[in-house]
Amino acid sequence: MNITLEQAQTAIAAAKAKAIKIKTLMNIAVVDSGTNLVAFAHMDEAWLGSIDISQKKARTARYFNMPTGEIGKLSQPGGSLYNIEHSNGGLITFPGGVVIKNAAGQIIGAIGVSGDAVENDHKVAQAGAEAVK
Amino acid sequence: MNITLEQAQTAIAAAKAKAIKIKTLMNIAVVDSGTNLVAFAHMDEAWLGSIDISQKKARTARYFNMPTGEIGKLSQPGGSLYNIEHSNGGLITFPGGVVIKNAAGQIIGAIGVSGDAVENDHKVAQAGAEAVK
Amino acid sequence: MNITLEQAQTAIAAAKAKAIKIKTLMNIAVVDSGTNLVAFAHMDEAWLGSIDISQKKARTARYFNMPTGEIGKLSQPGGSLYNIEHSNGGLITFPGGVVIKNAAGQIIGAIGVSGDAVENDHKVAQAGAEAVK
Amino acid sequence: MNITLEQAQTAIAAAKAKAIKIKTLMNIAVVDSGTNLVAFAHMDEAWLGSIDISQKKARTARYFNMPTGEIGKLSQPGGSLYNIEHSNGGLITFPGGVVIKNAAGQIIGAIGVSGDAVENDHKVAQAGAEAVK
Repeated sequence: MNITLEQAQTAIAAAKAKAIKIKTLMNIAVVDSGTNLVAFAHMDEAWLGSIDISQKKARTARYFNMPTGEIGKLSQPGGSLYNIEHSNGGLITFPGGVVIKNAAGQIIGAIGVSGDAVENDHKVAQAGAEAVK
Repeated sequence: MNITLEQAQTAIAAAKAKAIKIKTLMNIAVVDSGTNLVAFAHMDEAWLGSIDISQKKARTARYFNMPTGEIGKLSQPGGSLYNIEHSNGGLITFPGGVVIKNAAGQIIGAIGVSGDAVENDHKVAQAGAEAVK
Repeated sequence: MNITLEQAQTAIAAAKAKAIKIKTLMNIAVVDSGTNLVAFAHMDEAWLGSIDISQKKARTARYFNMPTGEIGKLSQPGGSLYNIEHSNGGLITFPGGVVIKNAAGQIIGAIGVSGDAVENDHKVAQAGAEAVK
Repeated sequence: MNITLEQAQTAIAAAKAKAIKIKTLMNIAVVDSGTNLVAFAHMDEAWLGSIDISQKKARTARYFNMPTGEIGKLSQPGGSLYNIEHSNGGLITFPGGVVIKNAAGQIIGAIGVSGDAVENDHKVAQAGAEAVK
């Protein structure tokens, strides 16, 4: 099962609405179940460095089917996945990437958000993912 | 002058409408005047390999302020720009990328389209660029 | 708004003058608001490895609109942006990169300096940025 | 023997003066005898894609101690250096890169110019190289 463009654009619209609500500027990326980019939006004046980070967060979440922040807990010095960020052309393992599921609970893609403190990135990603049914 | 997200989404919507009209499936990317990605859309079932190509076309058009196909005429064996594609992390020099201008005629970004014969890619890109004022 | 070559060369001249004053040898890079390289200078006998680092510092500062050292505080093990350096083709997050603003306070680019202890890198970058009006 | 920053800046100033004289906009890069970047200038509104190309031309000229266009004659389909552009992180083998010699005739670096038709790129590079003694 794969996310559609319509679903991806719904997720981006919901994420953007959340970003506006909490008064921040975000980059928002949605990938499909094969980690390929489906849709992307860079809010005006959002950080340019987060264009890449939002896409890497989305892919990282789908690569391992968990929120990016969970992987970051394991990739610390001494951790079991230390420096896993070197794989796959670069992972981002702090919060802001989450998988997207359909109504049946199947993973159909992932969303990555970057542009502010990671707690806000995560909240905005969550809002995007929840808008997809 | 830089394209806004609203303008980029207008370009993508117009390009997508054109793609539907000519019965094809496209990947559509819009970059700003600094070649940073602003918005992207992958139509359902469009070629996956064109996700990257559409982005490279958009950047290539802005890199040299001309339609990508014009560069391709010069980069052929024996041509004055032979193998220019090796620069900038990879250029795409066949048709499908064009600059986007504002009403005042200033270049504010570029659009790249990939997913079909290059003549169709170019037509769809053109439709997207013309929708921005 | 984008930095001009004249402004970039003014920044480099001021940074170089500061480097001479504090008796050190620096690499100095200036990027525009889209993170594209505008001007660069490698002082004779300065570290060769810092040619790349100075450019990455300039881009990193503009990517997130803050001094590079601020990002480095957050990217440590256990920090909220741990291993962010894996994004954007490689970031440099220790001091030496700062944004450049025009007289109106708008960000028009960034300067990155590398070649000595990071405190000196930062001082020299600051001197370069302040020379632009 | 290695080019100094002062010599590199002299080359860039002479190349820029030539570009202004023939009414064009150029990117100008100077590398040392080890192919490391010494100085760079992007003229306002010059092609962004030529920032990378000018640097690759300078390195290519020094890699093989000949004008870049000479290599391009040999890298054509069927030629003895077919597709040599794949090496060294990407070569540019059309005109616009030439070595820089000191008064004693020793190669001390190279200059690469990009921004217009390759004949003009070469002329501007030549003007830059000849300004160094």
